[in-house]
Amino acid sequence: MPSVAINSTRLNDNLAALGQIGQDEFGMQRVAFSQFDVAGRDYVMELMQAAGMSVRIDAGGNVIGRKEGDSSGNGPTLPAIMLGSHTDTVPSGGQYDGALGVIAAIEVVQALADADHATRHPLEVVVFTNEEGTGFHRWLLGSRAIAGLWEAEDFAAVHDDGATLTSRLPDIGGNISRIAEARRRPDELACYLELHIEQGPTLHRGGYPIGIVTGITGRSVYHVDIVGEANHAGTTPMALRRDAMSSAAQIALAVRRIAGAMEVCRVGTVGSMDVHPNAGNVIPGRVQMGVEFRDERMESLAAAEVELRRTAEEVAHAENVAIAVTAQRNTPAVPISANMQQLAADAAEASGLAHVSLPSGAGHDAQAIAAITPAAMIFVPSVGGISHAPAEYTTPQDCANGAQVLLNALLLADQR
Amino acid sequence: MPSVAINSTRLNDNLAALGQIGQDEFGMQRVAFSQFDVAGRDYVMELMQAAGMSVRIDAGGNVIGRKEGDSSGNGPTLPAIMLGSHTDTVPSGGQYDGALGVIAAIEVVQALADADHATRHPLEVVVFTNEEGTGFHRWLLGSRAIAGLWEAEDFAAVHDDGATLTSRLPDIGGNISRIAEARRRPDELACYLELHIEQGPTLHRGGYPIGIVTGITGRSVYHVDIVGEANHAGTTPMALRRDAMSSAAQIALAVRRIAGAMEVCRVGTVGSMDVHPNAGNVIPGRVQMGVEFRDERMESLAAAEVELRRTAEEVAHAENVAIAVTAQRNTPAVPISANMQQLAADAAEASGLAHVSLPSGAGHDAQAIAAITPAAMIFVPSVGGISHAPAEYTTPQDCANGAQVLLNALLLADQR
Repeated sequence: MPSVAINSTRLNDNLAALGQIGQDEFGMQRVAFSQFDVAGRDYVMELMQAAGMSVRIDAGGNVIGRKEGDSSGNGPTLPAIMLGSHTDTVPSGGQYDGALGVIAAIEVVQALADADHATRHPLEVVVFTNEEGTGFHRWLLGSRAIAGLWEAEDFAAVHDDGATLTSRLPDIGGNISRIAEARRRPDELACYLELHIEQGPTLHRGGYPIGIVTGITGRSVYHVDIVGEANHAGTTPMALRRDAMSSAAQIALAVRRIAGAMEVCRVGTVGSMDVHPNAGNVIPGRVQMGVEFRDERMESLAAAEVELRRTAEEVAHAENVAIAVTAQRNTPAVPISANMQQLAADAAEASGLAHVSLPSGAGHDAQAIAAITPAAMIFVPSVGGISHAPAEYTTPQDCANGAQVLLNALLLADQR
Repeated sequence: MPSVAINSTRLNDNLAALGQIGQDEFGMQRVAFSQFDVAGRDYVMELMQAAGMSVRIDAGGNVIGRKEGDSSGNGPTLPAIMLGSHTDTVPSGGQYDGALGVIAAIEVVQALADADHATRHPLEVVVFTNEEGTGFHRWLLGSRAIAGLWEAEDFAAVHDDGATLTSRLPDIGGNISRIAEARRRPDELACYLELHIEQGPTLHRGGYPIGIVTGITGRSVYHVDIVGEANHAGTTPMALRRDAMSSAAQIALAVRRIAGAMEVCRVGTVGSMDVHPNAGNVIPGRVQMGVEFRDERMESLAAAEVELRRTAEEVAHAENVAIAVTAQRNTPAVPISANMQQLAADAAEASGLAHVSLPSGAGHDAQAIAAITPAAMIFVPSVGGISHAPAEYTTPQDCANGAQVLLNALLLADQR
């Protein structure tokens, strides 16, 4: 494997410059389709051109920078090695989620150009549209367009502000009526590599500079609707209550127990609870909860659902309330192949960096692209495990480490 | 005791007529100071005048109908026997809460007039201002003005819509700058009698037509603020979470256990819970809860608070979160004197009606008036225990029974 080094100063400077676009006192506001999102993409396109890439925007609004490989003249063009991530943020998000993967991918291409190293495969760097799903509540929009995984709900998506996705996609250069043209064939791609911050505490706590992602956890989301009877908090004896709040509390603790003490699946969370009528002197007649489980094994998610439903039945019977558990979304777990994990691990070792294997608890564009080409993901530490918040931080050294491993992984893939 | 009978048909007709004022598809909307509240009070004032009462509105906006006693010419005027309740409702409330007590009190005076029975004591029928406290979050406004129990917060009260109480009180004929004039001296009153629906299930379930109230339960209200750490629901391992939701669930179940299994106090309720950020994929970083306990013994409320604080400390320690328990309001329990309970029980027996003693779990104007004169309360059954809802219902026979007991209690008090 040839030795090419990324430029840490340039990488971190470019990352900081992107972090100035859409930042206010509450954090990063580069929400998909906003003026800040457009400005961020414009900045990234300039970097791509400076690194010698040709740039286009596909029908899904994805920014695609491409540099041809040196095999172009000799027989058929090889499939491209794709690198990518996203530059959109959640509202009041951080500077590293997505942005690091994009800026590092461009740095990789720039470093190769500086070293006059031509790859055999064409290289593509992609900025995927609306990874976060903010506003339209449809995420991975760009990567799923490329993988041909759009669903009816994507075509019909409406923003919280009432605008249709059809009307907003042109704001970033996309066109929903031609979305099928964004789809890429498997034979166009050799593999996909993505660098991302961990967004969790494992690497930072363990002192590992590099994480090799073993798979992206699946996520099962449930809506739990508990209907009891609203009644006067002063006049209704305890024994005659049909209290939706007490029932909800038992289910919340069961969700924690299923993932925690019972270890049925990796994590379980009750993130939302809406109480009706939510008045101090009225026994809650109805509580609606959002429940989710995540695990890299689909059978663990299935087992967690069985436990959730069993608990709901027990509580409904004991508390004389009605409980409906409705499956909302089921994002399948996406395993990373042993080959691709090995590629990333070899790249870390070639960089002289300790590494550890771990699943990704968050979803990423890689899980969509994995449907059409082998994908690998490299994680770097998030200080304190904080993400989706202004305090999100990864040290300049860790950013540079990640970019170097990304470059080495690309060079290893290019030799295959 | 002379025998005078109330007119059940007239009572129920008048109650039904008042129930037409401010009713829509969602229930009674006779919220204090609204146009419907004013219309309801106008209707009641007509009934008072028809029953031979002189009518005035005091500075607190209370409607006061008065009929002099026949001792007026013979030496000093005796103190008045006061009857009363309220005609304001909660939003989307029922037809009986408050309204029955007012219409029955007027029926009592009308029945006495029809029977040509003059009482020794003057009689007063009072419609108290804003018993429910809707809008301004200051309840028993009228009865506390009469009892001289206004607090600084009453003078400064602001409606949810931004209007001051000072600006709204004139809508019903009151005047905040002269509120002290509404106060009555103890020597002006002989006693106070109030008929009310139970608003709970005890009488209806037990088949008792009449309840003799032993006391009005005290109420302790707490704000519980739990601060953990919001974090990614996918990437944060269970063992590293500081989940405000799990903590809140444990406290909700503890509140139920304190009143239920442990029987520290009569009832305990978590009526409200506000979760931040309340998103499906974020571990809640903060939960705010409204907790209340009620009991007729103040020492039981104190013991419940000790248990609540002990639980909060345990949970805070175990879950690595901060929990602040803040006492919000402490409405003291108001006992009904043995004499006044006996008066009501004798009146029920004189009416040939079975009766049972029970505490009032809800608050009533009687608890304010009890500060200046002996008070008694008579309950009639609420079908299914339902109140503060359109389905609130008391049978015409039970309404008539209650009015007859109210009349007999007045006649017994008049003989003293």
